[in-house]
Amino acid sequence: MSPTLASLPTPALILDRRILEANLDRAAARATALGVRLRPHLKTAKSAHVADLARRGPVGGFTVSTLKEAEYFFAHGCRDLFYAVPIEPGKFARAAALLRAGCDLAVSCDHPAVAAALAKAGAELGVRFPVVIEIDSGEHRSGVGAESGALLEIARALAAGSGAFLRGVSTHGGHSYAGRSPEALRAVAEQERAAVVQTAERLRAAGFDCAMVSVGSSPTMMHAEHLRGVTEIRCGVYMLGDLFQAGIGAGRREDIAVSVLTAVIGHRPEKNTLLVDAGALALSKDVSTHSLPPELRAGYGLVTDLAGHVLPGWTVASVYQEHGLVTAPTPIDFSRYLIGTRLRILPNHSCITAAAYDCYHVVDGSDAVVAEWPRVNGW
Amino acid sequence: MSPTLASLPTPALILDRRILEANLDRAAARATALGVRLRPHLKTAKSAHVADLARRGPVGGFTVSTLKEAEYFFAHGCRDLFYAVPIEPGKFARAAALLRAGCDLAVSCDHPAVAAALAKAGAELGVRFPVVIEIDSGEHRSGVGAESGALLEIARALAAGSGAFLRGVSTHGGHSYAGRSPEALRAVAEQERAAVVQTAERLRAAGFDCAMVSVGSSPTMMHAEHLRGVTEIRCGVYMLGDLFQAGIGAGRREDIAVSVLTAVIGHRPEKNTLLVDAGALALSKDVSTHSLPPELRAGYGLVTDLAGHVLPGWTVASVYQEHGLVTAPTPIDFSRYLIGTRLRILPNHSCITAAAYDCYHVVDGSDAVVAEWPRVNGW
Repeated sequence: MSPTLASLPTPALILDRRILEANLDRAAARATALGVRLRPHLKTAKSAHVADLARRGPVGGFTVSTLKEAEYFFAHGCRDLFYAVPIEPGKFARAAALLRAGCDLAVSCDHPAVAAALAKAGAELGVRFPVVIEIDSGEHRSGVGAESGALLEIARALAAGSGAFLRGVSTHGGHSYAGRSPEALRAVAEQERAAVVQTAERLRAAGFDCAMVSVGSSPTMMHAEHLRGVTEIRCGVYMLGDLFQAGIGAGRREDIAVSVLTAVIGHRPEKNTLLVDAGALALSKDVSTHSLPPELRAGYGLVTDLAGHVLPGWTVASVYQEHGLVTAPTPIDFSRYLIGTRLRILPNHSCITAAAYDCYHVVDGSDAVVAEWPRVNGW
Repeated sequence: MSPTLASLPTPALILDRRILEANLDRAAARATALGVRLRPHLKTAKSAHVADLARRGPVGGFTVSTLKEAEYFFAHGCRDLFYAVPIEPGKFARAAALLRAGCDLAVSCDHPAVAAALAKAGAELGVRFPVVIEIDSGEHRSGVGAESGALLEIARALAAGSGAFLRGVSTHGGHSYAGRSPEALRAVAEQERAAVVQTAERLRAAGFDCAMVSVGSSPTMMHAEHLRGVTEIRCGVYMLGDLFQAGIGAGRREDIAVSVLTAVIGHRPEKNTLLVDAGALALSKDVSTHSLPPELRAGYGLVTDLAGHVLPGWTVASVYQEHGLVTAPTPIDFSRYLIGTRLRILPNHSCITAAAYDCYHVVDGSDAVVAEWPRVNGW
């Protein structure tokens, strides 16, 4: 007999497979409609089981945010990977080991000196690093400007050695997270597209191949009008969803596939507060919904009952290491929430909350826990 | 030959054993001077190696914040444990299994219904739960008021069954974290002491034994003037220290024993910013120093060079999942911080930052990594 949600130790991370699959289907349909491949980012889910489910629609390879993820997903059969965080020399040997083992691991670079180092080190390490130049399409976090001289410098540095070659260009329009309307998200999606298409054309005009033209964030994936010239889109958080994504219109609250199962451990009637055993470690200290309009702010998470029904306005107002304080906009009937009662918390930011857990407890339309799927955390 | 700091994969959690041991010695001396036992809280360090080092001075048992910690530390030879988060019925069986295995695991309770349930369940599970009543000494998070009727109700509920017995009373003056002067911290320490001593006397006057009279937080441990009537003090973060503890005067910046080793992965000269590979997962999203005066605010952490020397005013100003943006108050000489350069980040809140890591890489006065100590995370 399967365990049930109510029998799990708390706190625990719950994944609803039906919601996950609907999210994966929606992204596959979007990519198909846009005529691009999908390269799902596994930094959110960090699970081989989820990666297997994500192979639907026009999915080619996957994106990762750490070399540990690359090693794990390659060991689980994902051969075509893009490590989308700028690489530095201390990571060359570990990346080269994956390439030698047969993983087609593309690495990211936004600096001519690193490109030169890759071209040199690849030869010494017995590999040719596939290198993707990161383009800054407006977030101004990393990447070279679409019109900057560094673009061709990097391409030339790669071509000057035998240990690396240019795979293409990529950008992440992370400033989409500041978007607060469909129009704003569409505009960022077009900035992403224009930046990589323009740079791909500059590179080709200078005689360089540029096979991969990659954009991506979950909000722009959902809102792009067209992606002409782009070959693939990367996005990750759409798989699990969260309150912030729902808040900016990149998904809906019903699309949130993960929640933290928690137990009531105390009553503070004089403060209209329940204590739960999900605190800062179980939920994270992410308060990203605090940048949204007041009605969308959720403290450290939004509270549902065990069945997943939202308790309107109930939020985790504050957290300590292992304690969360749940408050409600109307008086709590403490007799309905005895100590030991199970609740669930929808996260502000699923990438961060999920990282506290070694595994997902998977449900599938009932309270039966049908599977336990490991996650790859750390570095 | 030992690995060196510069050879470790990044990000990584570094523990300086010399600083740790000095912190442990200082607490042992404080407890000795105060004439109380020390029951170190292992929720910060979460390491059996650290627990072994912490057995100095008047240390009897240890405190834990999760049953997983209790199981781990019992398996590593810690027999006298206090699980200091309020227990709920869903955790009784797991706690009972530890008691049956020979662990003297005291549990925490602040509600008469839970006390009655413990007394009943203990009998069914073949154990007598040692129960500590949590007292609210002013933080108003959990615990019964020192003068509340619930105190004696809990004691009577425990006495009414054969499955539990009263071990004593405890409090955590967590409102010490709002203290901003030695006087304020001394005042909270006295509130803690007065609350538990008063309740112990009330219980004894009503005919109940009250062997354990327990207070604790790191700031009050360092600032209490006397602890007459108290038997033990619990504290945890003093072992590792952090910027917040240093900021409120519960330690010094030089007492911070943990740091996150990180690599420079990008340059943004136009923003006077370095990109590093320590982001929200590697550092946590804890910004607790933002409640301190401006000169003590550290963004997501304070930056040092590889040797641990603070780069004055350099902080991690913002974080993404795997990226951190380091800014400095004066122009950065980017030629000194080439991509690949190693830096270290002092955390705002070591309990939260450390939880992202499976182990400590231990140094001992040089850049040689002399040991790798596992941590017990999760639940």
